Amino acid sequence: MQAISKQTPKLSIIKIGGNVIDKPEKLQKFLSEFNHLPGYKILVHGGGKMATKLSQDVGLQIKMVNGRRVTDSQTLQIVTMVYAGLINKNIVANLQAFKCNAIGLSGADGNLINAKKRSVQHLKNQETGINEAIDFGFVGDVEANSVNVKNLTILINNGFIPVFSAITHNGEAQLLNTNADTVASVLAVALSPFYHTSLIYCFEKKGVLQNIDDEQSVITEINPSTFKTLKAQNIIHSGMLPKLHNAFEAIHSGVKQVFIGNADELTLLKNQNFGTRITI
Amino acid sequence: MQAISKQTPKLSIIKIGGNVIDKPEKLQKFLSEFNHLPGYKILVHGGGKMATKLSQDVGLQIKMVNGRRVTDSQTLQIVTMVYAGLINKNIVANLQAFKCNAIGLSGADGNLINAKKRSVQHLKNQETGINEAIDFGFVGDVEANSVNVKNLTILINNGFIPVFSAITHNGEAQLLNTNADTVASVLAVALSPFYHTSLIYCFEKKGVLQNIDDEQSVITEINPSTFKTLKAQNIIHSGMLPKLHNAFEAIHSGVKQVFIGNADELTLLKNQNFGTRITI
Repeated sequence: MQAISKQTPKLSIIKIGGNVIDKPEKLQKFLSEFNHLPGYKILVHGGGKMATKLSQDVGLQIKMVNGRRVTDSQTLQIVTMVYAGLINKNIVANLQAFKCNAIGLSGADGNLINAKKRSVQHLKNQETGINEAIDFGFVGDVEANSVNVKNLTILINNGFIPVFSAITHNGEAQLLNTNADTVASVLAVALSPFYHTSLIYCFEKKGVLQNIDDEQSVITEINPSTFKTLKAQNIIHSGMLPKLHNAFEAIHSGVKQVFIGNADELTLLKNQNFGTRITI
Repeated sequence: MQAISKQTPKLSIIKIGGNVIDKPEKLQKFLSEFNHLPGYKILVHGGGKMATKLSQDVGLQIKMVNGRRVTDSQTLQIVTMVYAGLINKNIVANLQAFKCNAIGLSGADGNLINAKKRSVQHLKNQETGINEAIDFGFVGDVEANSVNVKNLTILINNGFIPVFSAITHNGEAQLLNTNADTVASVLAVALSPFYHTSLIYCFEKKGVLQNIDDEQSVITEINPSTFKTLKAQNIIHSGMLPKLHNAFEAIHSGVKQVFIGNADELTLLKNQNFGTRITI
């Protein structure tokens, strides 16, 4: 890994989810602010409600195991259409209208993200209480070495702004449904030797909250030690845990800055007081 | 326009339609042969039956005027999902499995194809026999100057193989449904100053047929003069006319070679005896 100097170009990787994508006005405001961010940048987007709605419209039963969606072949078709097609191309067209040179990508394009299909897992089924072989279907797991840094830096250094849906492939013609938070994190880690990389997770809150009912109680900084305390106090739990694990994984692996906050407040990044900052 | 020399790199632009896309085995064979084509290359794909099926599945009424589909906003969503999402990403994943460095693109990506939304046309409605203002909806019209040659050549010259769906945009955040034959033709014309460009239209026949019922009666070459005769004899009519107009438009505008034939026979391109050749 080469040393990062002050001359190393800056790269911001922003991840947005359903709470932005499902609200046209909020999305539009976010994209306008994303366009104004200085330096190189990448947008990673998740899904939102549209895939669920389309599944219902075509009469597809959603299968869940332990609270997680199983991606069978029909579900994979739906998420490929909605994430890599409808959402991705509309975000790109909207950014292009701001003269932001967005290019919409899946992990298959340019072999940019090569994932491993998750193997059948032996887990306790929370409904039956029995250990079972659980197949999550066409789900992809990614690591930093899943990223084709050569092809991706060609795009970035030539002025394209990558906009990633979280659809990846396994290099054997199989598309895979992948967690968008993890995609953002592995992109940040893989690119951190070449850019001064910031990873910004946008979600529905202003940051990690001390008190879930008080939007003003943002914890401005979390380090490994305070993270331990916050977990012990049960202030951080359930859905926030994987996001924070991704964040710490990134900051421990060369990413310079990680923030978690609300897409509405992206302009605060300028003064580094956006949401919660994750530090070592 | 710079002169084309023998040193000018070769570029093949291949267009495939529903008759390939709807048949997995045929598509697979085609993609394998596409992968083996020498030189730079671009794939342009049309739609197929999947968009119609999805429209029916979600209960969307298909509107036709004078035999042509009207792209209302819901239809645009469907074709964006199916063409730019499902079909495009599956083709890319299949090409990547052959180690062909495909990158899936719409015209919005990298602002590569900037189309004009078709204005309301005053046409005779063939059902009513009355001249009417007919709005084909979110349909894009493209010309050679619609193509962003700078961004596209960056991709090509860096080893990416563009795979285009025929979804374009107008630069004002509006995606548009565009004719895939025309997209292939304008790409070929726009790139012909920089590459020794061949345009290859694949369709269900082995070429333009002298006798529609005899698959062996391929007309090996058509020039403007024989085209006139063939039209006068009613051997070329209806659906073949726009395809041949696109072909002649291309060959008159700097494209070096234009062929029309069957995707199954792509290997014949090597000896230049693929289907029907269009000449000046």
